[in-house]
This record gives sequence, structure tokens and C-alpha cells, in this order.
Amino acid sequence: MPKLQFNSDYQKLAHPLILERIIQTQDEFYPGYGLDNLCDSARNKIRKACGCPQAEVEFLIGGTQTNATMLDTQLASYEGILCTDTAHIAIHEAGAVEGRGHKILTLPSHDGKLVAAEVDQYIHRFYANDSHYHMVPPGVVYITHPTELGTLYTLKELEDLHAICHKYDIPLYLDGARLGYGLAATHTDVTLKDVTRLCDVFYIGGTKVGAMIGEAVVAPKPILFKNSLTQIKNHGALLAKGWLLGLQFDALFTDNLYLKISRHAILMAEKLKAGLAAKGYDFLCDSPTNLQFIIVTPEEKNRIEQFADIMTDHELADGRFVLRLATAWYTQEEDIDQLLALL
Amino acid sequence: MPKLQFNSDYQKLAHPLILERIIQTQDEFYPGYGLDNLCDSARNKIRKACGCPQAEVEFLIGGTQTNATMLDTQLASYEGILCTDTAHIAIHEAGAVEGRGHKILTLPSHDGKLVAAEVDQYIHRFYANDSHYHMVPPGVVYITHPTELGTLYTLKELEDLHAICHKYDIPLYLDGARLGYGLAATHTDVTLKDVTRLCDVFYIGGTKVGAMIGEAVVAPKPILFKNSLTQIKNHGALLAKGWLLGLQFDALFTDNLYLKISRHAILMAEKLKAGLAAKGYDFLCDSPTNLQFIIVTPEEKNRIEQFADIMTDHELADGRFVLRLATAWYTQEEDIDQLLALL
Amino acid sequence: MPKLQFNSDYQKLAHPLILERIIQTQDEFYPGYGLDNLCDSARNKIRKACGCPQAEVEFLIGGTQTNATMLDTQLASYEGILCTDTAHIAIHEAGAVEGRGHKILTLPSHDGKLVAAEVDQYIHRFYANDSHYHMVPPGVVYITHPTELGTLYTLKELEDLHAICHKYDIPLYLDGARLGYGLAATHTDVTLKDVTRLCDVFYIGGTKVGAMIGEAVVAPKPILFKNSLTQIKNHGALLAKGWLLGLQFDALFTDNLYLKISRHAILMAEKLKAGLAAKGYDFLCDSPTNLQFIIVTPEEKNRIEQFADIMTDHELADGRFVLRLATAWYTQEEDIDQLLALL
Amino acid sequence: MPKLQFNSDYQKLAHPLILERIIQTQDEFYPGYGLDNLCDSARNKIRKACGCPQAEVEFLIGGTQTNATMLDTQLASYEGILCTDTAHIAIHEAGAVEGRGHKILTLPSHDGKLVAAEVDQYIHRFYANDSHYHMVPPGVVYITHPTELGTLYTLKELEDLHAICHKYDIPLYLDGARLGYGLAATHTDVTLKDVTRLCDVFYIGGTKVGAMIGEAVVAPKPILFKNSLTQIKNHGALLAKGWLLGLQFDALFTDNLYLKISRHAILMAEKLKAGLAAKGYDFLCDSPTNLQFIIVTPEEKNRIEQFADIMTDHELADGRFVLRLATAWYTQEEDIDQLLALL
Repeated sequence: MPKLQFNSDYQKLAHPLILERIIQTQDEFYPGYGLDNLCDSARNKIRKACGCPQAEVEFLIGGTQTNATMLDTQLASYEGILCTDTAHIAIHEAGAVEGRGHKILTLPSHDGKLVAAEVDQYIHRFYANDSHYHMVPPGVVYITHPTELGTLYTLKELEDLHAICHKYDIPLYLDGARLGYGLAATHTDVTLKDVTRLCDVFYIGGTKVGAMIGEAVVAPKPILFKNSLTQIKNHGALLAKGWLLGLQFDALFTDNLYLKISRHAILMAEKLKAGLAAKGYDFLCDSPTNLQFIIVTPEEKNRIEQFADIMTDHELADGRFVLRLATAWYTQEEDIDQLLALL
Repeated sequence: MPKLQFNSDYQKLAHPLILERIIQTQDEFYPGYGLDNLCDSARNKIRKACGCPQAEVEFLIGGTQTNATMLDTQLASYEGILCTDTAHIAIHEAGAVEGRGHKILTLPSHDGKLVAAEVDQYIHRFYANDSHYHMVPPGVVYITHPTELGTLYTLKELEDLHAICHKYDIPLYLDGARLGYGLAATHTDVTLKDVTRLCDVFYIGGTKVGAMIGEAVVAPKPILFKNSLTQIKNHGALLAKGWLLGLQFDALFTDNLYLKISRHAILMAEKLKAGLAAKGYDFLCDSPTNLQFIIVTPEEKNRIEQFADIMTDHELADGRFVLRLATAWYTQEEDIDQLLALL
Repeated sequence: MPKLQFNSDYQKLAHPLILERIIQTQDEFYPGYGLDNLCDSARNKIRKACGCPQAEVEFLIGGTQTNATMLDTQLASYEGILCTDTAHIAIHEAGAVEGRGHKILTLPSHDGKLVAAEVDQYIHRFYANDSHYHMVPPGVVYITHPTELGTLYTLKELEDLHAICHKYDIPLYLDGARLGYGLAATHTDVTLKDVTRLCDVFYIGGTKVGAMIGEAVVAPKPILFKNSLTQIKNHGALLAKGWLLGLQFDALFTDNLYLKISRHAILMAEKLKAGLAAKGYDFLCDSPTNLQFIIVTPEEKNRIEQFADIMTDHELADGRFVLRLATAWYTQEEDIDQLLALL
Repeated sequence: MPKLQFNSDYQKLAHPLILERIIQTQDEFYPGYGLDNLCDSARNKIRKACGCPQAEVEFLIGGTQTNATMLDTQLASYEGILCTDTAHIAIHEAGAVEGRGHKILTLPSHDGKLVAAEVDQYIHRFYANDSHYHMVPPGVVYITHPTELGTLYTLKELEDLHAICHKYDIPLYLDGARLGYGLAATHTDVTLKDVTRLCDVFYIGGTKVGAMIGEAVVAPKPILFKNSLTQIKNHGALLAKGWLLGLQFDALFTDNLYLKISRHAILMAEKLKAGLAAKGYDFLCDSPTNLQFIIVTPEEKNRIEQFADIMTDHELADGRFVLRLATAWYTQEEDIDQLLALL
């Protein structure tokens, strides 16, 4: 029997409607580099969904590439990025951000989140320090939503971060690799329009939310992303067949597909979470999205790995392990049932 | 009537057999980041085609990204790249190579090619110069095959370059964005095994030769590409859904597909070239591959642009223009006929 | 009355013997860029003092520049540096190391020091982690000796670090901005020959130890610093009037001047430390070198700042302050007496 | 007999008045990093000499470092520098500019100079090119004055370059490593106030014009050099003993010393040039400053090298050599006489 698949949200090719759209284009000729009508259509649908007609919207291929490119575009060469010590860019992007010269400055994670007051205090103390000119000034505040731990900012928390960033005139950047799963969460009060209003640059993740590949960058104020194609190309991130990205986002932003398929993953995650709780598993934190983290002994870990493909997030000091279970747009309810039966 | 499409070789999605293979994977689960069996299968087929069982083979997404990543992996931080002044990396990659710190050093192009004796002379003079320690030492020799002008190195020319690189212990890097069209050219004496034997690192282009996206990097001596996934990730070039790249190269290297579809483009280009010559067009150079460059007056340029989508390469000092016409794996013979009839 | 000067060890121009040597050269002509006989003489004296005739020795201007240059020379472009979270490069070098692409990876400081077992554990866990290929591999271990807190490694601790670095084939780099003050400490068992034997690259600080400007880099195995002048130039660190650096190190390594003047600073620091202890001051840690850190209330801080120029290192969570008092080769015993009388 | 010294203008330590000022500071304590009163005094004197009270003025150590730092501060990460193909940054700075990510774009040198009309044409054609988004946009125009060939821009030429830069909103950067020798040239119509009015950032070279070490950067509009100390530190270019730089420029800008000593070098160069012309030497170009380039056969080169230390600039295609003879603030008239007698 093949293992049950809960390792991640990028294990299947693409949502059927996306694949169908891809296949439909097979006989067409397109101009390269995103200068095609499919990209334009997708840009306009995204602008509309964001409530921001003037936004600069561009398509990149993957998350690390998008972060490395877009953070570099927001920073002077000597400036750094302020984020949590659990941030994807701080740990799991192989130094791509530093590769273009920028230091990553970390604050303690609160269930994966930055706290506005701590950001305020950090920046205040930074400039109060007589020696700050020897130190890297934060030039961007970076958050993930959902976070690496599956948690979400509340609207109030985002507004507070926005206010602090505005106070210090520092852009707020939101990594939305799994944005759909955040927007579709049951009790969230954060909408795409809120994200657009409160962030200076963000991206709408496709790779993990139904697309085959692709991430859509949104800069509500276009001045923050001048010469966009050149900057993307300079980072090796400009796809020759740009229409392949455009058509996917055009599909995702047609008939609300992006939120619909995200919602499915949330329902599956809620069922999984309830089942895990019923069985008495300890959770690392209370995640309302598609990633659930449980704490298990080495024996349980070994047992689970017999029948399920899951990810070991890290080992705790007490020898237990944190396991990550991911649902996705493609998760089948019977797989949840089967998993819960075996756990 | 839609325009006849001769602008480039990346205007259509993918060869039907590639697309078929993509569709076949839609219900499968795969591990991420190239650690899947489709990538492994493709790696082995490429190793076999290269006659090099020990080669390190990895898959990246596009050409600029591949060049920026792989040149950086071959260089110490202060070393530069020696190439022609028409090289893609020198002009049309938006500074991606310099973005990671490396200077590009240029020699005059001979129909797009480096000449071994000139490389020898350059490096010899460099080290003979008392002030060379103030200058950027060449750490890689970069060539394209076919070149940006569609021309090809002969086996003798490649062997000479290899010998010079060996003499100075400098890696020879071959950008094979259109390698298929070179290997399938009618009178070429250069095979994939020759490329593997003579180059230290090269890539087999997929994007322009039948794949949807993807380039396959080959390092015949794996020591020249240590920690390959980390280096790729560090450059923002590691695709989460790596199997999507693997399956395409698996298809391209099954039943000789890569060469077969390249050969078709060559036959189309030969027909086009003969037709253009018969009509008395001036050629920029004698290209045996899928890119043909003709020199036309502004009036001819305008007239041609009425019925054909072609690329203006550059303007000559005398006011005439160099136009680039590209065939590809997808070029239809009737389009050639129609184009020639209209020219 | 001018304030008593205990702010740092770079507040006076140069030791009189150094200045005398500088003045002596004023009528001479020298070749540029360190290719002169004064540099050669200094190189040989340093090689002799290090017990390493084959060492590559070069002269740079300041500490941040030296760290940024020499760490870059030791690393592949994607590799990072492992150090304490109090390391100078991690906090007070304005991102110079990241500016050339390298991530700084930190471990908790133990009174400013790395602990070999923790380095071992870090690297072991790194490679044991299935996802390590998404992470920055440590490519150099960086230590300071004395540390930023004035503390010293014991010979055993250095040997343990060396063994761990050797185990993983990672160079050990020692930032010796204040190396003299470490070598001249009363109970240290670490000699310059030990440093040379146990470290792969290190520098002997001049700026803070009697020189006007300058740091001497030592690479016991020259292979670890190929094309040294080019690498230095590439980092903007090659002084045109290189002999100015050479003559200073020639003087410092004549008649044991470097250690003699360092020893003076240690004797002054010991007197200061004893006096501070007698007055009941709390120390941040037990420093055997020229930097002494005491913990004071805001009121005491204000009072001390009336008569002494000292450095506020940081504020503690309880509102008290850590003050740094530095002695140097130029500290006068009567200034210590006066300071202690006022404290 | 020692050789006659005409190799360069950085072969002697410092002008006696500079050295005297250095010696005077030996018993003083100073705050570090340029925050001292000597730097402030020098800043004010330079502002006055420039006729620009609001200018940001900072001190760096050497030319390559200054160019690498200040060009980076003027550029977005993807932008390049437009300069001549003989520019110092393009050839003799070991890739320091590219080391921080910027491509150098070259135009043909006209006796070392850029021609405004060609800059205009380059930028115009760049943006007229449909593919320009794949190319590196010029973000700074870089000139040297005097040039690497000793030539000078006229006021009209500088004004034209300024106008073109203004037209495209691109900063004009002037590398003044030998600025004194330009300002003191006999027939120049360019003053320091003109340079200040027409350039966005420039530096006043000290190392080659009387100082021991040091270059003074001037940004007439401070907005173009925000967080200056941090940017300098980030490039490893912030000297701990900053007052050592400040006092030198304070001396150079007291009683017109900078121009006086430059004028001496010019008079010596004029005498040398007249003598060379009288002896029938061929000149590479007509240089009105302290560098004179003559063209000689290999035999003459060998003969001259017996009695004079001069620099071989390059070999011509016909086998002859271009030799560079430099005068400086320290050149003795009798050495010129002796050299001319021997030539």
C-alpha cells in the first residue's frame, strides 16, 4: 500500500482546471517574458481582487526566488530585513537573500509571528544606540501569512505592523507562499484587500495553492517596483514562457478558484486537527490553516512513518519530535479518515 | 490573418510528447526538489547519452538562471568570465552574472565564436602584465553552442579551446540553450559525447528545444558541482516540483526525441535559408542552425513586419537592420513556404 | 579638566617607535601595493614569530575590511560563517560580510566564546537534518581572541576547536584585532605559535595595538590565500602605499615590541580590575585582558560619564548598564589612579 | 646610482606639512570613526572650497575602495555604470565594483574621456531598444578628471555631460584621484566649484596629491549619500582612527596647500613634456597634467629602464611600448634635468 501523503502542499502537479488551461494553450503562439495577453488578463483580475487598479503585478516562478528578488528590490545595498527567527528566509532559503548582500535580522517568533510592539522596540532601540552606524539598519519588515507554523495574523496585528512600518518609513513585505490557505481559514478577519492595503509588497503563492508553478508579486504602489522585468531578469527569475504563469493566475482568479480550492484544504485540515486532538496528540501551536504540527515520541514517529509520508520539522530538547502534517487543495477526505484510523 | 511566427524558439508551450508525459503525472504524488524517480531516470538517460556515467546532472528552470548559478559555482569570488562581446551573458542577461559579483571579460566575436588562439593570447598577456594583480583574472571560459548568431564550433575548434583551458587550468563552460539545434545540424562534427568530453560544465537546453521549461546541467566531473542542490537553492533556482523538470528531460532523452525534434527545426531552417538566399537576401553570417540573420533596409523591415513576427536584432551603422528569423521544433513547412512567398 | 580616556584602544595615533619609523621613511621612494622591502622584512619577521616560514602574510588596513576580505576568500559563494551571537562580524560590521554574499550563523556566546562541543553538535545536526540542502552550510568557524568581552580561549579550548574544524574540514579563522592583549595576558597558555598551528587563517591586529593603522593577515598554508593581492584589491583593501603598513609591522615585530606594549596594557588593566573589584563593582565576566566590563545603575553611569570617557556597551533588562573600560598600550598609570579615586 | 623615480605619484609618504600635522596629534586622544573635530574642520574647509555649505563630506582611505563604495551607494542593485573602456574601474580595480553586483558598461575612450553626445546616444538607443529590459540600465555616469591618460575635460565638456545626465536623471560621478593635478593645470577652465556644481558625487584625491592616505568624498546634495558612515562601514572602508584622514584634508585645504603642491607637479610635468617633445618623442596624447605617455621601441624601453623607474602602460600592436612618466608634488627639478639628459 502506498503511504498516505501529508508531507507537503506541493506534491501534486496542478489543479485540474489549471492543467486544462495549460493544455488549451498548446497550439498557440505567444510573445515571451510576460508581455502576452494571458499575463495581462491575470494582472487585471488580481488587481481587481486586491481592490487596487494601479498595482504593479508580475509573475515569478518559486518562493525563494521571489523573496530574494523582491526583498532586494526594496532595499539599499547596506540595509537588512527584520523577521522572526523561524522565518523561511532566515533558515530554509540557503542564503539566497544574503547572496545578494542583505543581512537578515531576527526577532523571537511568537508562534511564527512578529509582534508589532517588539518591532517598534527593536527599531527604536536601534536608532537610540550610539553605535548604530556600525550596525545593519532594518530596511524591510518581512512576515509570512500564514506563517511557517500555519498561524495567522489577525487584522489588528497586521494593522499594528503596518502602523509601525509606516512610523519608521520601512516597507512591510508579506510572503504569501500559502496565502490562499490563510485567506480561506475559518475565523480569519484578514482579506486580500486588507493585505493589499496594509503591505507594501507581497506575493500570492501559486505553487502550493493549485498552480503548477508560479507566484504573483503585487506592489500596490508601482513606484516600489520600478523596471520590474529588468529586476526580475537580473535575479534570474524571468520566465521566457511567461504566459505559462499568466494563464495559471488567470485561472486561479477566475470564479474565485483560488479561494475555493484553498477552502477545501482548510476543511480537510480542520478535520485532521479535530481527529488529532481527539486522539490526544500534543500540538506545537494552534494552527487554523493547512499545516498542523504535532509532538511525538521517537517510537510514535517511527510508527507513523510506516504508513504516512510526513515531514519531521525538528527534534525537541527532550528527544521528542515535531512532525508537520500538510493538507492541500488535493487532499482527499478518505485519506484523512484512513490516517486518523491508523494514528 | 495572423502573422507568421518566426520570432523565436520559445513561443509554443511544449512538444506534444512532453505535454502528454506532464499530463500523465497529474494524479501522482512526488517528493519535492528533484529527489524523485523521474529526475533520477532522466539523470541516468542523460549520463548515458553523454557517455559519462559519473556525471552530476541537475535540472534548472531557465537559461539566465542556469548561467548565473553555474558560473558562480565555478568561480572564486574575485574571478571573472572570458567570453565574446556578443555573448548572451554579456548583453542580454540584465547583469545576473555581475549580480553575484563576477566581472565579464570580453574578446571580439568571430561570428559569435571565441577563437582558441585569442583566448591563449589573452590569458598569456594577462599574466605577463606586471599589473595583472590589479585586474580580474579569467576563471571560466564561456561559450555558446550554437552561438547567439546560430553558428557552430567545429570539433577542432572545441578541442583547441579545451586544450587552452586545460593549459591554464580554467574550466570551459558551454551554454547549450539551443544545444539540440547544434547537435542536429547537417554538417556538424560535434556530438553530445564530444561536448561532455571537452567541457567542464555545460547545459542541455530544454526551454527552446521541445520542453515546456527546463535546462539540464551536466558536470562530467562531479567535484566541479559539490552540494549541488544547495548551490541551486542559494541562487533561487531550485524548483519545488522538481519532477516536472525531470519528466521532461526523461521524455527528451527517450527514443532520441531531443535530436529528432531538433533535426526538424534544422530542416526547416535549411529550407528557409535556401529560400532567402534564392531571393538575394544578405546574411549576417553563415548559420547552419535554426537562427538565420538577414540584413534589410528599413522599408523591407517594415514590409516584412506586416506579415511576419520576427525579431530585430540590431541596427547597422548604415541604417539597415539585422533581422533574426527563428525556426523551432514546431515550425510548419507551409509557414516557411508562405513566408518565402511573401518575402 | 579633560575627561579620563578609557573609551577604547584606538584613541591615540601610534606608539612613538612606530611613528619614528614612519618619519624615517619620509624621504624615500617605494614601489606601491606591498611589493617593497619593508613589507618583505615584516613578512619574514612575522613568519619567524609564528614559527611558520612558509606562511602567506599580507597587510590590510582595518578589522572589518580584513574580516570581510579574508572570510570571503575562505568560502564558496553559498557557504556561511559560524560564530557566537556576540561576534563583531555578527553585530558591529554593518553587514560587510553579508555584503559579499555570506550568511552569518550564530551559536550562543559563552562569555564571548564558542564551545567546541557545541560547534560539533551544530555541524553534526546540520548534516543529520534531511532538509539541510535548503540551509546554509557553515564553511568557516570564526572566533575572536581576545573576544569582544575581553575573554580568552585556553590552549585546550583552541585545540578542541581546531580538532572539530579538522573533523569537518572547515577552516578555523581567528580575528586577532586585539591579539597582542591576548598573548600578553598574565595566565594565558596560548602563544602566537599555537595560534599559527591551530588556525587556518588569522590576523594580528595593529590598529588597536600600537600601530597607526594596519592588520597583518597570516595564512599558514598559502594555498588558503591564493592570488592574495588580487583578492585584497577586489575587496578595496589594497593600500597604494603598502610600505606604510609593512614598516609598522616590521617595527612591532622587532625587539618584541608587539608583546611589550601589549603587556603594559595588561598591567594597567589588572590594576584597574583590582581597583574596580575592591570598590565592589559587578563585572559582566572575568576578563584577563584590556577590556573590563562593569554593571552600573543609570545614576552611576551618569556620574562616571562626568569625569571619564567610557563606552556604554548595552542596557540590561533590569535597567542597569554595562560599561566598557579599555586600557591600551598608551594608558598611563596615573590615569588609572585618578579614575579609581573618582569611582 | 639609484634610478630616477617617475613611476607614479604615490611613491613618497606625505608632504612635509601633512606629516608635521600628523606628528602634532601624537599625544592627543580622539573619538573614533570620523566623529572628531579634525574631520569636522576639514569638512567645513572643503565645503567652503567647493562653494557648497550643505555638502556631505566623508573621508575614505583609497581610490578603489572609494569608487566601489560610492558607486554602490548611487545605484539600485541591478543598475550599471557607464564609463570609458580605459576607465580605472573597468580595468584596474580587480572587479571591486562588480564584487558588489554592478556591471560596468563601456563606451570608447576619446583620449580617456567620455563624449557627452555619445553618452546621449547610448542611453537613447538603450531605451529605444525593444529588448532593453533584458539589459543593464546605466544608473551612473563615471568619469575621471584628470583621466587615466592625464587629459582633462573642458568646462564645456563637463557641462554637456552634466546636461545629458540631468536629461536622463542619472547621477554624474567624478573620480578625482588626481583632481589637484587637474585643477592646477595651466590652461584648464574647470574649478573645484565647477566640479561641485556639475557632479552629483565626486572625490578629492589625497593619496596621490600630498596626503599620506585618504580621499575626500563630496556629495553636494546630501540626499545622495544617506547614512554615510554605515554605508562606508558596510564596504569595509570606515577607518577607526578617522581623525588621521581629517587632519590631512584639513592641512590640504589650509592656505591653498592642495592646489599649491599640485601646481608644482604641473610645472615639473610641463618641463618634462617640453623636454620630451624637444627630443622628438612621440606622445600617446596631449596631456596637460602630471602623467605623460610616450611611445618607444623595445630597445628604447630597455635603455630607459636602466636609469629610470617608469611604468609600462601597454604594448602596441606594432611592438612598440607606451611608457608612463609621472611627476608629483615631490618631483625635484634636478631629477627632470637628469632624466632629460639621459633620454
